[in-house]
Amino acid sequence: MIQITSTVAEVQNQVRQWKQDGLTVALVPTMGYLHEGHGSLIAQAAKENDRVVVSIFVNPMQFGPAEDLATYPRDLVRDQQVCSQYGAHLIFHPTVEEMYTPGFSSYVDVSGLTEGLCGSSRPGHFRGVCTVVNKLLHIVAPHKAYFGQKDAQQLAVIRRMVRDLNMDPDIVGCPIVREPDGLAKSSRNTYLSAQERAAALCLSQALDLGRNMAAHGERDAAAIIEAVGARIRQEPLAKIDYVHIVDLDTLKPVQQIDRPVLCALAVFIGKTRLIDNFIFTP
Amino acid sequence: MIQITSTVAEVQNQVRQWKQDGLTVALVPTMGYLHEGHGSLIAQAAKENDRVVVSIFVNPMQFGPAEDLATYPRDLVRDQQVCSQYGAHLIFHPTVEEMYTPGFSSYVDVSGLTEGLCGSSRPGHFRGVCTVVNKLLHIVAPHKAYFGQKDAQQLAVIRRMVRDLNMDPDIVGCPIVREPDGLAKSSRNTYLSAQERAAALCLSQALDLGRNMAAHGERDAAAIIEAVGARIRQEPLAKIDYVHIVDLDTLKPVQQIDRPVLCALAVFIGKTRLIDNFIFTP
Repeated sequence: MIQITSTVAEVQNQVRQWKQDGLTVALVPTMGYLHEGHGSLIAQAAKENDRVVVSIFVNPMQFGPAEDLATYPRDLVRDQQVCSQYGAHLIFHPTVEEMYTPGFSSYVDVSGLTEGLCGSSRPGHFRGVCTVVNKLLHIVAPHKAYFGQKDAQQLAVIRRMVRDLNMDPDIVGCPIVREPDGLAKSSRNTYLSAQERAAALCLSQALDLGRNMAAHGERDAAAIIEAVGARIRQEPLAKIDYVHIVDLDTLKPVQQIDRPVLCALAVFIGKTRLIDNFIFTP
Repeated sequence: MIQITSTVAEVQNQVRQWKQDGLTVALVPTMGYLHEGHGSLIAQAAKENDRVVVSIFVNPMQFGPAEDLATYPRDLVRDQQVCSQYGAHLIFHPTVEEMYTPGFSSYVDVSGLTEGLCGSSRPGHFRGVCTVVNKLLHIVAPHKAYFGQKDAQQLAVIRRMVRDLNMDPDIVGCPIVREPDGLAKSSRNTYLSAQERAAALCLSQALDLGRNMAAHGERDAAAIIEAVGARIRQEPLAKIDYVHIVDLDTLKPVQQIDRPVLCALAVFIGKTRLIDNFIFTP
C-alpha cells in the first residue's frame, strides 16, 4: 500500500526515518496526471534507490496568466495506481497553501539558459519551475532526483541551479517515452481531439526527419531547421512556436553542428502547445 | 590549531565527518576583517553547537559597481586569531572562482522585504546576499547559522528565504556589539579618520534619543524619525541616507508604533556608509 501525505512535516519525518535506517531516497517531481513517461522515471528511481517519493503538485507559479492552470488535467486516484505500479513508496501531494505560505516572496532564477526556447514564449515559467524544484529538493532532501529529457530545457536549467547553488542531490535525466506511433507522452495529450491527435504526429515525424539529416552528415543547423519546419507546416492544424538547434550545454543557437546539440521544438496543435526534441552528437 | 580550507569539497568532507560522529555544526558567514561583533556570533555558536565553521568571503555579487569591493578591508592572519580566540573550529575561505564557477547564472531573490531601507540605496545587494548565503548553507549544511542584528534587514531577508524555500538550518540573530562609546562595531569603521570616527557617534546617539522617546510613550513614528534625523544633521560630516521606522516582520513603514518595530538608519560619514538600528516593542 503506497503512502500519501499532503504535509511538508510528514514527508520530512518519513524521509528522515528512511535515512536513519540507511536507505537511499529518490524524488520524482511531477504535476500529476501520470503517464508511462512518469512511470519510466519512477521505475528507474526505484531501480537505483531504496525508496521513491513522487511529488504531485500542479505549481501555479510556473503557469502564465493565459496558460492552462485551471484546466490542467488531474486524476489522483489513477496517479496513485501508477505510482504503486512502477514502485514508488510515498506520494507528496501538497496544497498550494502548504507550498506557498502567506508572505511567500523568495524566488530562484537561472539566467541565460532560460531566455531562449520555451523561456521566450513562457515568461516567468522557469522562475516557477526553479523555485518549486528548489523547495521540493529541500523538503524531500533526496539522494537523487529524476527528470524527463522531454522537458530538455527544464532539465538543463535544474542541473545548472543545483550546480550553481551547491545543492546536494544528483540530477538524473531520463529518455523520452513515446506512444507506439511516435508521439511523445505528455499529460497535455489528453487535450487533443481525435483529429488533433493525428495531426500531433507531425512533431515526432519532423524531428525524425531532422535526426536523419544530421545522421547522414548534414551539419548546417539552418538547413535542418528549415526541413523540420517545412514538415510541420504541411500539417494545417499545427502552428510552430519555435524550432531551434542549440548547444546542449549553453542552450545557445548553433550554426554548425560541430558539438552535441539539442534540436527542440514547440508546436501548437489547435490550442494545445506540445514540445519534443532530440539530442544529436556528431 | 584552527583548520582552514579554500575548497568546497574539503569543508563538505569535514562537516560530513563531524555529523557522522554525531556532532552539531554551526555556520557563521562573514566577509572577514573580524571584530568583536563577529566574535560574539562565533562565541554564541560555539556555546550552542559542537563545531563552528566561519566562512570568510568578500562576496563580489553583493557590492554595487560604485561600492567598496576593491578596498574592503582584509586581514586573514588576524581573522584566524579571532576565530581561534572565540572558539571556531574551521575557516572556509574560498576564492571567487571556487564560489562562482564559469557559467554561473543562478540567483535567489526575496521580493518585498528587500525593497526599502538598504535595498533602495543598494540595488542588487540583497540578491548577492541571498545567493551567497543560500550557497553557503548548502555547502556547510549546518544545524544553525548565526547573523548579527546590526544587519537587521539582511537577517529578516535570510529568515524569509530559509522559510520560503524550506531550507534546513535554524537562523539565529545575535545582538549588536558596540564600542565603549556606543558606535556599532563594523569592519567599515576602519575607513574612518579620527575626525570622522568622532562624528560617527551621531548614529548611536541619535538612535538612543529615538529609543528614549519611544520608551517614554511617543507612538508617532514621524516624530521620532524627525528627532533622530535632526540629531544627525547637527553633525557636519554626516549625510543621511535614510532613517526609517518599519514593521519588524514586513519591513514596511509604520505610522503608529502599535507593534514591534525596527528603527533603522544609514548615514554617510564622509565617504563611509554606516548602518545602525534598534528594535522597539511597545
